[in-house]
Amino acid sequence: MAACIFCKIIKGDIPSMKLFESDKTLAFLDIMPLSKGHSLIIPKHHGAKLTDIPDDQLAEVLAVTKKIAAAVGAENYNILQNNGRLAHQEVDHVHFHMIPKPNESEGLGIGWPATKPDQDGLKKYFEEVKAKM
Amino acid sequence: MAACIFCKIIKGDIPSMKLFESDKTLAFLDIMPLSKGHSLIIPKHHGAKLTDIPDDQLAEVLAVTKKIAAAVGAENYNILQNNGRLAHQEVDHVHFHMIPKPNESEGLGIGWPATKPDQDGLKKYFEEVKAKM
Repeated sequence: MAACIFCKIIKGDIPSMKLFESDKTLAFLDIMPLSKGHSLIIPKHHGAKLTDIPDDQLAEVLAVTKKIAAAVGAENYNILQNNGRLAHQEVDHVHFHMIPKPNESEGLGIGWPATKPDQDGLKKYFEEVKAKM
Repeated sequence: MAACIFCKIIKGDIPSMKLFESDKTLAFLDIMPLSKGHSLIIPKHHGAKLTDIPDDQLAEVLAVTKKIAAAVGAENYNILQNNGRLAHQEVDHVHFHMIPKPNESEGLGIGWPATKPDQDGLKKYFEEVKAKM
């Protein structure tokens, strides 16, 4: 997509620090990292959300992510992919973050407001979702 | 692995609300969700961190994750996979969270301590990582 910054990086119109490239996938260092080694792994297929990308275009994403985590030598790390503004997505082209977590202050901050729903209600909801799979 | 709670769920020794199952992958609802629809997608292959799982065991994980996001009808959602205690991992069997983000207070909380490193230093670091890919 012409206006998409990640499509421009894929085309080479904007430079990037490329760690991996194949016909389907591109990976490069984030230039505003949360920690040293913070990388982005993207399908070349343009789509805003995970649900917009064909399955075959996603098949090697995690293998590439793994390869980068190993090359960076991350021991603690988060893989994150955000969909939608509310969910902290800033660029509307699917991207996976590989973010090393070297200590408490660097890397991804996580808030975990876990709930313990009524299990009967959850079971009923489960049946509804299962019917849509 | 005998003591692993997710391996027990895979074996059926512990019940779960299964949304998807194949020879390689299992997906089920999280019973302590951050939001309605919070699901877990796991490779059946036991391994603590992403770097411990063979590539072929990861190939369908994102397709299944997509399928669940669509079934749940999530508009805003986060895909998260944590590696190591510092990175908020609690069960030592690789698992991907699909967490709907319906509003500010429910779902995943994200802290984003972005940095703007010296670009020459980053370039030098890039060359080091690239050499290990």
